Amino acid sequence: MSRDLTMLMDFYELTMARGHMLAGSLGKIAVFDLYFRKNPFDGGYTVAAGLEQAIDYVQNMRFTGGDIDFLREQDVSFGGEMAEWLRGFKFSGDIHAVGEGRVVFPGEPLVRVRAPIAEAQLIETALLNIINHQSLIATKAARIKEAVGSDPVLEFGARRAHGPDAAVYGARAAAIAGIFQTSDALAGRMFGIPLAGTVAHSWIQSFDDELTAFRTYAEVFPNRLVLLVDTYSTLESGVPNAIRVFSEMRAAGTLPAAYGVRIDSGDLAYFSKRAREMLDAAGFPKATICASSDLDEFLISSLKSQGARIDVWGVGTNLITAAGWQALGGVYKMAAEVRGGEAVPKIKLSENHEKITNPGVKDVYRLYDARTRKIKADIIALEGERIDESREMVIFDPRDTWKKMRLRPGEYTVEPLLAPVMAGGERVYEPPSLARIAEICRADMDSLWDEYKRLVNPHILPVDLSEELYALKTRMIREAKGV
Amino acid sequence: MSRDLTMLMDFYELTMARGHMLAGSLGKIAVFDLYFRKNPFDGGYTVAAGLEQAIDYVQNMRFTGGDIDFLREQDVSFGGEMAEWLRGFKFSGDIHAVGEGRVVFPGEPLVRVRAPIAEAQLIETALLNIINHQSLIATKAARIKEAVGSDPVLEFGARRAHGPDAAVYGARAAAIAGIFQTSDALAGRMFGIPLAGTVAHSWIQSFDDELTAFRTYAEVFPNRLVLLVDTYSTLESGVPNAIRVFSEMRAAGTLPAAYGVRIDSGDLAYFSKRAREMLDAAGFPKATICASSDLDEFLISSLKSQGARIDVWGVGTNLITAAGWQALGGVYKMAAEVRGGEAVPKIKLSENHEKITNPGVKDVYRLYDARTRKIKADIIALEGERIDESREMVIFDPRDTWKKMRLRPGEYTVEPLLAPVMAGGERVYEPPSLARIAEICRADMDSLWDEYKRLVNPHILPVDLSEELYALKTRMIREAKGV
Repeated sequence: MSRDLTMLMDFYELTMARGHMLAGSLGKIAVFDLYFRKNPFDGGYTVAAGLEQAIDYVQNMRFTGGDIDFLREQDVSFGGEMAEWLRGFKFSGDIHAVGEGRVVFPGEPLVRVRAPIAEAQLIETALLNIINHQSLIATKAARIKEAVGSDPVLEFGARRAHGPDAAVYGARAAAIAGIFQTSDALAGRMFGIPLAGTVAHSWIQSFDDELTAFRTYAEVFPNRLVLLVDTYSTLESGVPNAIRVFSEMRAAGTLPAAYGVRIDSGDLAYFSKRAREMLDAAGFPKATICASSDLDEFLISSLKSQGARIDVWGVGTNLITAAGWQALGGVYKMAAEVRGGEAVPKIKLSENHEKITNPGVKDVYRLYDARTRKIKADIIALEGERIDESREMVIFDPRDTWKKMRLRPGEYTVEPLLAPVMAGGERVYEPPSLARIAEICRADMDSLWDEYKRLVNPHILPVDLSEELYALKTRMIREAKGV
Repeated sequence: MSRDLTMLMDFYELTMARGHMLAGSLGKIAVFDLYFRKNPFDGGYTVAAGLEQAIDYVQNMRFTGGDIDFLREQDVSFGGEMAEWLRGFKFSGDIHAVGEGRVVFPGEPLVRVRAPIAEAQLIETALLNIINHQSLIATKAARIKEAVGSDPVLEFGARRAHGPDAAVYGARAAAIAGIFQTSDALAGRMFGIPLAGTVAHSWIQSFDDELTAFRTYAEVFPNRLVLLVDTYSTLESGVPNAIRVFSEMRAAGTLPAAYGVRIDSGDLAYFSKRAREMLDAAGFPKATICASSDLDEFLISSLKSQGARIDVWGVGTNLITAAGWQALGGVYKMAAEVRGGEAVPKIKLSENHEKITNPGVKDVYRLYDARTRKIKADIIALEGERIDESREMVIFDPRDTWKKMRLRPGEYTVEPLLAPVMAGGERVYEPPSLARIAEICRADMDSLWDEYKRLVNPHILPVDLSEELYALKTRMIREAKGV
């Protein structure tokens, strides 16, 4: 199940590497940050995901002879010393990152890369591709999970995902955010996510009538007895036929402990309520009702508020494609250059405030309320700054600097979010199991007040710059603008 | 670059196969249609793509011992004869399909599968995954291409795609619809799409000042001279510094034939007009202006109508994620069962008119106006029906049956759209080259009147049912409803 993704990179990463080689700056050490500027779905948070696959990529990058021949065909300057460099390529840098499953916010470096500049460039595209994708889906899944509450949810979007990777890594990302069941057999096999699923309409159609289809299914899979009731008419034939089969099984003593029906179309609020009444009236109050049909967090919330009697939710297209938000929009920007062992901060300006980068080598800290254990704020600080519980902290909004919050010792605790994952090109962390990552995510979600998690117009968690970083940034903007 | 995707299937495909085995119906021959119900983006057409990869999948499906062990852990009933069946699995059916690059419409079978029912089920998820994805991106690309006209367009969305497959197969799909340049080196290597790209902001930042960065780039890559001008200030430093470098090169006699600037942020209409003026005033009317920054078909149309002076368009996130439409929504529905060599039509009802399937084994025909060679209508007919130029055709809307169009012999030509691609489990077609598929797509787009191609509220091309199919469907609905 291996394949070589080394070449998954924008061509300009390679031309810039060649450019640095020709300019004599190939080995210049640079620091890059991977971060995003806006929570997807106009939400209040983002769930970080994809690090394990991103680091796998970096560790396994090797250019084959075929790759190098191909590149030489693109540009003659890729022969000679460039071909030699590519042949011997192995990432040699250091990477710090926020762990998977953590709740993160705009502006925070999720990944910090320190490496010879050409190496740091060559890993850009794949890091962004993998982390943008999985974090987007994990965030969508977290929103759906919030809407659903404690009901079971099943991911079954493989057929609508953007290709095979989007199906399997989307299922992985959904599992991180607590949708820990999938219909995708390959995702189950790759990541150990429990598999679920019932039957398709074609099963029903392949028999002469619905009742025979239900009876046959009950005979062959009594342990998976969820009958799909909407092939012909949910209330006129599907539910009555399901009840008939359940009754026959009860009479025969073969009714399993868990059984139910699935509704896959129509007015789910109305159908689920009527189906519930019919099942209850027939003496099957334990029969579960599973619903699916273009569900997303908003529709689920609406169905809940309408009193729909749905016990299990199947979510497909809207989860696996992150419907409503095209991309996380993560970027990878140069933050510093190392000269003689010293980090020289770098900045990129823009007419647009949000697009101005934070200069320098940075760390991220999370401040919790000591009493409630809820997150108070995150702080981006320069590496080496002391951010700990021992002193009074004044937190301020980097744009509206009059928005301040004062935290006294004893009132808060501090947690650094970035940890080393690669050093000198070697992996220095043990990726947690998927189940463990899901626990981490659950704990982070629990440490957020509900106001940050609501689906529409959430509170915005303060992500502030340390005083030193703020001063550096302000000075660099002034210098660059010459004002 | 190979990997095993065999298990990319919803688990219920496997349980249904086991169910048919237990029910004794494993070898029942069934016919399935893959089709979609709505053009993406509320547009007037869809571009079919992904067939080559879908057929690759079907041809290479083999369950490994590890797959089978894994499945047995999921359900004890997957041991014994089921394990044996999986071990020997090889798709043995027939597949007809519409070629890649063809313009297609809602309701038309893009793929028609005739196979033992369990085999037909097992290929469902991957066929849908691959064709839904690539057709969606190809359709988005066609819309962007329509907006752009004859200007060059470059796909560079790899970093925002839904994982590695979405990057490379998205680039392939974009190429099918005429965006035949990509930044993605892996897509270039896999599919021969020409590579393009300039430099990132980090190149500029890695030098002490912008002018040095530009000069160095011009020295090392005079053949790729597109300078990125928005790192500090597009009009105050970027364009003036680019002009200075162009002037120095002209003086030295090293200015290449093709050169220009790239603007990646800000007000592209304003900046491109001002940059054009500045370049022209400095004597560089041939310098091209490339623009990028969250472009899509609507923004490009708007920029064109504002008179923006953009020569080359770079399109990323919104193309590769098909922003604005979550999924093509292709489905795979049982249309018939073969009994004693005879096809017995099957139907699936729904409260929702669009969700009622078309029963029977069907073909699709395209009718062209004999004079203009533009598409008049498509017709879905039963296999074996005679649809040719020799007789008078009355085409009517299957819902609003009073909407009729009469075509006399000589006024129209007919083209069947479905062709065999697999027979008895073997591939029986030669996949065209990507360049050839792009030509096919271009020809199909040209055969559509502009009214069908406009971005908002397009005309809807008539896709009608033959009289025989219409009669069959009506009869089956009545019978099933008992009315």
